[in-house]
Amino acid sequence: MAKEKKVEQITDMETDFAQWYTDICRKAELVEYASVKGFTILRPYGYAIWEIMQHIMDAEFKKTGHVNVAMPVLIPESLLKKEGELVNGFAPECAWVTMGGSEQLEERLAFRPTSETMFCDHWSRVLHSYRELPMLYNQWCSVIRWEKTTRPFLRSREFWWQEGHTIHETAEEAIAETEQQLNCYADFFEKVLAIPVVRGRKTDKEKFAGAEATYTVECLMKDHKALQGATSHYFGDKFSRAYDVTFTGRDNKLQYPFQTSWGSTTRMIGAVIMAHGDNNGLVLPPKIAPIQVIIVPVAAHKPGVAEKAQELLDKVSALGFRAKADFSDNSLGWKCAQYEMKGVPLRLELGPRDIENNVCVAVRRDNGEKVTVSLDELDKQIPALLDAVQQSLYDNALDNLEKHIFAASSIDEAKQLQAEQGGFIKTMWCGEEVCELKMKEEGGMSSRCIPFKQEQLGAACSCCGKPAKHMIYWGVAY
Amino acid sequence: MAKEKKVEQITDMETDFAQWYTDICRKAELVEYASVKGFTILRPYGYAIWEIMQHIMDAEFKKTGHVNVAMPVLIPESLLKKEGELVNGFAPECAWVTMGGSEQLEERLAFRPTSETMFCDHWSRVLHSYRELPMLYNQWCSVIRWEKTTRPFLRSREFWWQEGHTIHETAEEAIAETEQQLNCYADFFEKVLAIPVVRGRKTDKEKFAGAEATYTVECLMKDHKALQGATSHYFGDKFSRAYDVTFTGRDNKLQYPFQTSWGSTTRMIGAVIMAHGDNNGLVLPPKIAPIQVIIVPVAAHKPGVAEKAQELLDKVSALGFRAKADFSDNSLGWKCAQYEMKGVPLRLELGPRDIENNVCVAVRRDNGEKVTVSLDELDKQIPALLDAVQQSLYDNALDNLEKHIFAASSIDEAKQLQAEQGGFIKTMWCGEEVCELKMKEEGGMSSRCIPFKQEQLGAACSCCGKPAKHMIYWGVAY
Repeated sequence: MAKEKKVEQITDMETDFAQWYTDICRKAELVEYASVKGFTILRPYGYAIWEIMQHIMDAEFKKTGHVNVAMPVLIPESLLKKEGELVNGFAPECAWVTMGGSEQLEERLAFRPTSETMFCDHWSRVLHSYRELPMLYNQWCSVIRWEKTTRPFLRSREFWWQEGHTIHETAEEAIAETEQQLNCYADFFEKVLAIPVVRGRKTDKEKFAGAEATYTVECLMKDHKALQGATSHYFGDKFSRAYDVTFTGRDNKLQYPFQTSWGSTTRMIGAVIMAHGDNNGLVLPPKIAPIQVIIVPVAAHKPGVAEKAQELLDKVSALGFRAKADFSDNSLGWKCAQYEMKGVPLRLELGPRDIENNVCVAVRRDNGEKVTVSLDELDKQIPALLDAVQQSLYDNALDNLEKHIFAASSIDEAKQLQAEQGGFIKTMWCGEEVCELKMKEEGGMSSRCIPFKQEQLGAACSCCGKPAKHMIYWGVAY
Repeated sequence: MAKEKKVEQITDMETDFAQWYTDICRKAELVEYASVKGFTILRPYGYAIWEIMQHIMDAEFKKTGHVNVAMPVLIPESLLKKEGELVNGFAPECAWVTMGGSEQLEERLAFRPTSETMFCDHWSRVLHSYRELPMLYNQWCSVIRWEKTTRPFLRSREFWWQEGHTIHETAEEAIAETEQQLNCYADFFEKVLAIPVVRGRKTDKEKFAGAEATYTVECLMKDHKALQGATSHYFGDKFSRAYDVTFTGRDNKLQYPFQTSWGSTTRMIGAVIMAHGDNNGLVLPPKIAPIQVIIVPVAAHKPGVAEKAQELLDKVSALGFRAKADFSDNSLGWKCAQYEMKGVPLRLELGPRDIENNVCVAVRRDNGEKVTVSLDELDKQIPALLDAVQQSLYDNALDNLEKHIFAASSIDEAKQLQAEQGGFIKTMWCGEEVCELKMKEEGGMSSRCIPFKQEQLGAACSCCGKPAKHMIYWGVAY
């Protein structure tokens, strides 16, 4: 029955990965299209995943002294224009408010595409002394970027994110913050989302508009395409100068603070889908699953089964897990397919024979493995099984990543490897944008990052043959 | 020293209540004006209060089965126009997006002033069967209403809120939901914000655009003006019909669901300021205070004081309270004034002599009372003192409310009572809008609500003398 449902509802990833992805987004009830083109709705199940992610990340941010604030959503065009690179980078994709009520506005207002300008404007008015530094701010909100082509989670005109913005007394402190937050993202991807990442720096071409340096975590999907996970930016004092943010330093002179910003978005849900999903649907890492354990009674009409299933639910919930039991009159097959589609990490089946034997049958979502679990050992077995699912998802994703990093010594070789194998192609690089553009045009790949962990693959740039400065990763990216 | 600071920084409420209010908003670092007219920034301390409120309310909503979602922020004008009363009520104060990137939009999009239309549009596409009902949705977000005159928290062009939206199989269930959520708000005001409320129904003139009935919690500020706390609306099937939301009922026929919505906003922070604040600044109920206990070392340079203060902080934190110690080199006087301004409910002073005696001195923010607390009894004394502050704030606010409800039997009498005493003026009312308008014009008061707890003050409408239908509360409102 589960199979029938699957065939009926979801495209195989081998047949059409893009359609498989969209099918999961819709059939697992994560998102729905809105009547405004390019906009999506986060449905309860999708939002529940985002809520859990927010909860975990927010606690991490607060551990290192960050506080949340709320900035206005509309930015005057003149304010946005004060920093040239930023406005050039974002103005073409801003949504513009030109009317308030029935009055035509004297100056149009941009729906925030990102809020550096608002934070700087605020700091220019409230910052006075070095004693008030650092200011470590974050906000959870939605932003709009008027994209031409959109896909759920990966690229939509409105998306939900957090944007951290900090100012510091010294450049060293700001750089340390940029690195700390990148590592915070990397840990979140690896330990929570079970997605291994490559940490590195973006090229000047790919860095954030106006940043001195952009750090990134890059990950690999099941189709061997790359996805930028989250980014952390160091601005030096460029924005401080543009927005006249100053403070009285220890030397009693006016100084400009050094600035960072860092962001992560609902696209991380897209990453989870494409890193772990399979042809039965979504596969969620237990740490972010809204339902970690689903209890399905078998032959629930028989005496004692429903009661015992309720008892099992109470026990698993009391252990601190997010659990649910499905007592509906849907068939067992439908229920199994349904919770597989929704990626619930562990299903516990409980029927009359199980009750006789004081056991239930645990089915792992990641590999379908069935384990008979004594009802007296739930406190040991449930956490062990969930840990095993979490670990196994990470191990498989790591295996996928490690098997799809290839060294190339020419654009042709890089292109061929990408066509045959996919993944990250690593080459040496001279550091010049002209070679980066050449790899894009001739090899069909963008630079993903200059990994922090450098390898010496050779002495010459794989594109032009001149002396190489860095080892760089290339890929076809979402 | 605290006095000097006070005189320097904040207007007395008796001198100028409006200025006193604004002073607290700014000096307690709750909000700051943005460079966009009528927009405000929620600063870390203000946002921390909102975060705690959200956390408590969200848990309450979830207990009764509500789930969170995220709807798009932009609403096409044609969608907004499908329900006539709603669009008439909100269109005049919408912010309109007319450009996306460099393209002029074919149809302008409203920044959501409220999201009934989006929820209905979504439901029209996902709802199929009565089995899926009720759908109990909520979202936390910001909205824009293009107000002409603005004040921090009370009326600003952008504000932060939650909006609950639900659909039900029957009218009875929807009405029960409307009432349940109103009671949820009332409990939050009374038990968490320590603000007693009057529960009642809005008149047809004052109800939400498009609603069949609007329920409200109304409260009274220290200047005896009224403030609408939160509202809960019943729509019948009016919106369902306008937006073609249907489901297959138990009788296998297409039916329209019955709908509610309910909202509460950051204006609740304004209510807290004006219900509890005094001439030294903000006074926060312990349940929403970001810092519940501030520890101030006295003569901190003397040996052992800083260590003992840190120990005290660790102990109070371990008891589960939000605590902080101020080890800065600011003067004792400045620190006391600072945390009074920020409304911290309890200050613990600890100096060499206290350490000798194994005590600290607890100072209550609400009444300035000093209590010597044994360091061995913190686990009993701290919760007891915080409970006492919470209770005392409620008792004082209740006293203020009860002493400012006056019965009147004519518009003249009502007007005179309002001028002399302020507060809620209760009269009998025929139920006709003409009398409501007359009270507004001649008495200077708007109807606040028709309280659920009715009293029989007389048989005739106090405005026109015709037979009365209800006892109604009037007031001058924020």
